[in-house]
Amino acid sequence: MNKLAVVAFGGNALLKSGQKGTVSEQEDNIYETCSNLLDLIKKGYDIVIGHGNGPQVGNVLLQQEGGEKVFGIPKMPVDIAVAETQGSIGYMIEQQMRNVLYKEDLERDIITIVTQVLVDKNDPAFNNPVKPIGPYYTKEEAEKIAKKTAAKFQEDARGRGWRKVVASPRPVRINNRKSIEKLARDGQIVVAVGGGGIPVHYVEPNKLQGIDAVIDKDLASSMLASQIRADEFYILTDISKVFINFNTPEQIALDRVTVKQAKQYLSEGQFAEGSMAPKVRAAIEFVENGGKRCIITKANELGVANAGTRIVLS
Amino acid sequence: MNKLAVVAFGGNALLKSGQKGTVSEQEDNIYETCSNLLDLIKKGYDIVIGHGNGPQVGNVLLQQEGGEKVFGIPKMPVDIAVAETQGSIGYMIEQQMRNVLYKEDLERDIITIVTQVLVDKNDPAFNNPVKPIGPYYTKEEAEKIAKKTAAKFQEDARGRGWRKVVASPRPVRINNRKSIEKLARDGQIVVAVGGGGIPVHYVEPNKLQGIDAVIDKDLASSMLASQIRADEFYILTDISKVFINFNTPEQIALDRVTVKQAKQYLSEGQFAEGSMAPKVRAAIEFVENGGKRCIITKANELGVANAGTRIVLS
Repeated sequence: MNKLAVVAFGGNALLKSGQKGTVSEQEDNIYETCSNLLDLIKKGYDIVIGHGNGPQVGNVLLQQEGGEKVFGIPKMPVDIAVAETQGSIGYMIEQQMRNVLYKEDLERDIITIVTQVLVDKNDPAFNNPVKPIGPYYTKEEAEKIAKKTAAKFQEDARGRGWRKVVASPRPVRINNRKSIEKLARDGQIVVAVGGGGIPVHYVEPNKLQGIDAVIDKDLASSMLASQIRADEFYILTDISKVFINFNTPEQIALDRVTVKQAKQYLSEGQFAEGSMAPKVRAAIEFVENGGKRCIITKANELGVANAGTRIVLS
Repeated sequence: MNKLAVVAFGGNALLKSGQKGTVSEQEDNIYETCSNLLDLIKKGYDIVIGHGNGPQVGNVLLQQEGGEKVFGIPKMPVDIAVAETQGSIGYMIEQQMRNVLYKEDLERDIITIVTQVLVDKNDPAFNNPVKPIGPYYTKEEAEKIAKKTAAKFQEDARGRGWRKVVASPRPVRINNRKSIEKLARDGQIVVAVGGGGIPVHYVEPNKLQGIDAVIDKDLASSMLASQIRADEFYILTDISKVFINFNTPEQIALDRVTVKQAKQYLSEGQFAEGSMAPKVRAAIEFVENGGKRCIITKANELGVANAGTRIVLS
């Protein structure tokens, strides 16, 4: 049996900071990122791709705001916006991956799955929504919307206004995980669990509904990797390795770190929240759930020997 | 082997005329439409669902226009907008289908595939784009955009302004058709080829790219049905049967019509373009390509004996 790898594309793989998000910018970035998988493909790995959607879902939410203001089009909830980006980003990844394979004359098929992820309404994250999404409002606008919709708002730290915050609950179950595994084992490159998955929950024991939330994409990809019994989990980011004492004279790049060490570093606050910390947590979970190793690395160093930081059990 | 059916959901199955398109309106409509598949499900059919996206892609294009006007977010081309609606509508269908199955205590899994459909740049449809999409502009605005982007515009017949028109080329190849067949044969209800599929073409012999076009959703579902060797093809619409001499005192509802008869009626102009004519053509193609029968029917009469119009070879 071939080795199975889950590769999580970070935001940078899709849209570089400073870019506005035109389709040709995104296509070029994605083509480049997909090229980095050639090493795994040539080694015969079965591959599942997860991906973020931060800038894209942000744009969709602003477009919805603009569509309502200018044309009176009803805004959609967050779950629908995530679903839209799974369609658009999944399509772009699938297309650019096909183009990479054409260029190399490699025959692999690619398939993109719209993926719902179950979350638990009793997850404590729902008591403390922290993930800012969508447009900036004035305090008065925010209060007005909050009254009408029960949405929560938070003032932006950089003074840009008030922004809706939603919960970032833990993923509980990845829908279609068995099909994803089967398709990947059958040799297809599978794009799934985009943007951390479309968050859904049971409003009644037998009734699913979307919920205002954003699931961490690395955590969702980690859970998918565990559930489909992947051998390796790659988290692509924009720096070469995980560092401790980051941005100090004592900065050290980590080549290999055990789960125990990684937990120690986390408890020391070595990794920034909203950046490296969730990636390290996702890596730890994968390895603790039976994965061989997680590699956090810069996308274009994926095929390079000893690139990135390996998180292993011991 | 179970019978395999492709069911194409029409626009009405998702959004009724007069509705604005809120998420709860769409969820209710889709739940109702999905309930109509219970008869096929209980009879043990393997099922693939295709669907339209007219009102939804219209809303996405207006949201993009509004997003650009209010926030300066770059607009996306039509292929990306179609991909977005495959994500959102596919998600809604999958979720409501799950809810229908939960309620009936039936165990079937459902999976949604983001589907690219290859078209031919030399299709004569590209010389004569006829499908209006997106916002209405003044003549001056339209001329300005036309100069910048090479887009074509047409004045609306009802005087609402000028609108971009895109080609409606024939589908040439449905991506992932083998996986769609395999998943359906494996018992999963597969949602695919939404909005007629994301239109792509080869800009170079080995390079795929999206293209400004809209593929007829019944024709795309028909081609998918043929390519996965479906036994039956259902086109759900908002009238009970196909009529000849429609809206005249000589109106006749058709119960069963052969391909030869259907072609004769088409040549007589019995069926309205943009409405029943493309459905009948899609039905004819399916049967001519080896399908047993196509049934054009009202969604909520799907399980009723002798409901709808059957198109058969002879």
